[in-house]
Amino acid sequence: MSFNHRDEHVDDSMLLIQANLDDMNPEWVSYIMDKLFEVGANDVFVVPIIMKKGRPGIMLNVLVEDERLSVVEEVIFSETTTLGIRYMHASCHRLAREFEQVLTRWGPLTVKVGYHQGEMVQYAPEFKECEQIAKEHKVPLKQVYEEVRMQFIQQKQKNVSS
Amino acid sequence: MSFNHRDEHVDDSMLLIQANLDDMNPEWVSYIMDKLFEVGANDVFVVPIIMKKGRPGIMLNVLVEDERLSVVEEVIFSETTTLGIRYMHASCHRLAREFEQVLTRWGPLTVKVGYHQGEMVQYAPEFKECEQIAKEHKVPLKQVYEEVRMQFIQQKQKNVSS
Amino acid sequence: MSFNHRDEHVDDSMLLIQANLDDMNPEWVSYIMDKLFEVGANDVFVVPIIMKKGRPGIMLNVLVEDERLSVVEEVIFSETTTLGIRYMHASCHRLAREFEQVLTRWGPLTVKVGYHQGEMVQYAPEFKECEQIAKEHKVPLKQVYEEVRMQFIQQKQKNVSS
Amino acid sequence: MSFNHRDEHVDDSMLLIQANLDDMNPEWVSYIMDKLFEVGANDVFVVPIIMKKGRPGIMLNVLVEDERLSVVEEVIFSETTTLGIRYMHASCHRLAREFEQVLTRWGPLTVKVGYHQGEMVQYAPEFKECEQIAKEHKVPLKQVYEEVRMQFIQQKQKNVSS
Amino acid sequence: MSFNHRDEHVDDSMLLIQANLDDMNPEWVSYIMDKLFEVGANDVFVVPIIMKKGRPGIMLNVLVEDERLSVVEEVIFSETTTLGIRYMHASCHRLAREFEQVLTRWGPLTVKVGYHQGEMVQYAPEFKECEQIAKEHKVPLKQVYEEVRMQFIQQKQKNVSS
Amino acid sequence: MSFNHRDEHVDDSMLLIQANLDDMNPEWVSYIMDKLFEVGANDVFVVPIIMKKGRPGIMLNVLVEDERLSVVEEVIFSETTTLGIRYMHASCHRLAREFEQVLTRWGPLTVKVGYHQGEMVQYAPEFKECEQIAKEHKVPLKQVYEEVRMQFIQQKQKNVSS
Repeated sequence: MSFNHRDEHVDDSMLLIQANLDDMNPEWVSYIMDKLFEVGANDVFVVPIIMKKGRPGIMLNVLVEDERLSVVEEVIFSETTTLGIRYMHASCHRLAREFEQVLTRWGPLTVKVGYHQGEMVQYAPEFKECEQIAKEHKVPLKQVYEEVRMQFIQQKQKNVSS
Repeated sequence: MSFNHRDEHVDDSMLLIQANLDDMNPEWVSYIMDKLFEVGANDVFVVPIIMKKGRPGIMLNVLVEDERLSVVEEVIFSETTTLGIRYMHASCHRLAREFEQVLTRWGPLTVKVGYHQGEMVQYAPEFKECEQIAKEHKVPLKQVYEEVRMQFIQQKQKNVSS
Repeated sequence: MSFNHRDEHVDDSMLLIQANLDDMNPEWVSYIMDKLFEVGANDVFVVPIIMKKGRPGIMLNVLVEDERLSVVEEVIFSETTTLGIRYMHASCHRLAREFEQVLTRWGPLTVKVGYHQGEMVQYAPEFKECEQIAKEHKVPLKQVYEEVRMQFIQQKQKNVSS
Repeated sequence: MSFNHRDEHVDDSMLLIQANLDDMNPEWVSYIMDKLFEVGANDVFVVPIIMKKGRPGIMLNVLVEDERLSVVEEVIFSETTTLGIRYMHASCHRLAREFEQVLTRWGPLTVKVGYHQGEMVQYAPEFKECEQIAKEHKVPLKQVYEEVRMQFIQQKQKNVSS
Repeated sequence: MSFNHRDEHVDDSMLLIQANLDDMNPEWVSYIMDKLFEVGANDVFVVPIIMKKGRPGIMLNVLVEDERLSVVEEVIFSETTTLGIRYMHASCHRLAREFEQVLTRWGPLTVKVGYHQGEMVQYAPEFKECEQIAKEHKVPLKQVYEEVRMQFIQQKQKNVSS
Repeated sequence: MSFNHRDEHVDDSMLLIQANLDDMNPEWVSYIMDKLFEVGANDVFVVPIIMKKGRPGIMLNVLVEDERLSVVEEVIFSETTTLGIRYMHASCHRLAREFEQVLTRWGPLTVKVGYHQGEMVQYAPEFKECEQIAKEHKVPLKQVYEEVRMQFIQQKQKNVSS
């Protein structure tokens, strides 16, 4: 039933890029994060920090393959107000991932599953799908998550026992 | 040796004023805080928050007597980017405070002392004075604090035993 | 050129509703914030906090008119994991607001303007519009903001001098 | 199977007590939180804030019935370094709560259930019990939670259908 | 009087491991931190962050010797919900540490002392011991700290002068 | 009109030094940050974190050239309470920077300009100067910023068209 697979692996060619922003309109942050994902960032997040003179700044963090450094810099320099960025070499250990489908009362929904050394260690309903179901069927989002998780576990148990 | 005294009291006429800022240059925050203290704010502080669309905003908090509401609003509306503020009624319980002097190896320094129902519960070296001593005498700031606290305690103990 | 107007006023019938969440999937937060705006919340924001046993929780804050308390509670109880909420009475002082249009190199764009006692104290480009222009015309978002602000100021100055 | 019950209710006699701490050893925080719970606080939490001169302080928050104000103050004044506290009147809306037991592969475990207007809206495994099972049986804590939640739902469904 | 000694040194074989968590129950954090210390982590801490779609996530940080990477990963993958971790090489400069005992009014208590290039730069009462004394003798924790620090300094001064 | 120039460059010999502080008086932080800038730190900032036992600590971050490691350590060990620091190798990409002057209604003021591959991407009024003008002329700081930015853009446009 899986329709996607990536093997567990370690990627040693990653960079963690950081830029401290103490003079930028925070309204722009979500737009900038989206743009960074578009140019290939593996992850983007923001950390509230305190900078010199007690300024409540934010530290932009971008995790990306080293070969994409320059396109990420292009976005940061053109869209934020920073005069410089820094980066550190990082290694990423990523689990094997599969997307499996489970049958729920609202039809089939996707679960993202993570495997460590061949063993399932994570499974999580896909947010976007659950959000859409919650809206359409006017049920609490947490109930959609619960149903998806329940059905997934029961499906797994059936597969094991059969 | 005390040269200042305020009795312990409860003040029921305080307001906690809050403004959420999601589109302001954080560089301006320290300037704005200073201005708010100048017009009589009892306390000013800033809380990192997450606003709609995931914006990393800040919530400005001003604690002030209700009769100064309009002057504080004047500063907030003219210096920040907010289109509105909110406020809640608050009561402040303030300890009796005295400023006492202790003799240290660098001369006399001030300790702010707090009394709850007649009993000493707090004492703290004055930051500004300690900072100046640390700079002048090229000693770690923490050592200045330690010395002031030590001398204060020993002075207190002498007063008790004599 | 204005097409919307609301007078400056103080609204004394507001509530600040708070719920501490220490056992909820943070993925759901943006969905919940959207839902709270839908049922009439004036503002919704989230504060990172530390709860008992060192749990990194979040405090959900909803600012709303008191008559909408129950619909907000309905959303909080059905969509979050909390077993209780608290609320405090608050007053909101809101500036007079107008939406004005300015002519930019990309066509007319909106500026939200705030007036305090008849005097203009705030003006801010509309995020959504600027974001769309930035995407369509492939220009940095900050440049769109700058252009809108520039044109707005120059238009104001012309009106004054003519 | 329930062995505890409290009706849904609104309590209008609560206080939210706050103290800003900018000169206290953060090591003491957990101890102080424990003490505040001991003297009857309904909730205690801490918010990272930025105080004057850019100090990274913390705001201590205590939610408590108004008649316990003085015992809470006693703890705050004797255990923290603050020279004053503030408090605001608050109302608490608390769900009806029941503790139910479910049978899991590790024996019976407790689920805390919340009811809003007679309808179940929350259920959560008891942390302490799950933690103990995870340690004893050397299984991931998240697996214990999952099992408890699964069994609880299935038990509920059986009760409904029978 | 010392009963433990480690020389000042730099350890170049450390890793800083990070995992961003945006879909995990924060209740589990303290349990996971404890487990990471058990398998040999030198330090574990958590940073509040803002992730994509404005999610209020947390970044788990583990500082550990590189040879323990896999046991730390084992805990992270089995106990958290992450699908991947990253790590960066780090060097740790650790001061020489001694545990010394001082005689207080409540009996002997321990002070952890740090030496940089042979000179004492840090000394701190042991939290656990002070907490226990505070509970047993019903004295404020801050008073226990003060007494231990006082006695330690006086003891040091005596040793120097004798 | 420029009176300062530094070319765009990448500096691969930087260190990001970090120290977790869970038992230090936060009052000292601004003093310590100032001292770190004095001994040559390129940047200093503080991150609110949660440490073991739920302690609300702070992580001090210092970005500095590797040859200044020992002077930075000297400040950290003598002024903070930490028993160890860690550092990671980092590369800094810094834009070309020029300081240009613009003529405003309050006289000439400085703008810091950043160039990426020969193209202007950033410009920012100098905070200290604007702050001084705001105080002297009793105008809102944000108005000073606006004026400086306006004049700068118009000056640039004139240079292009002439």
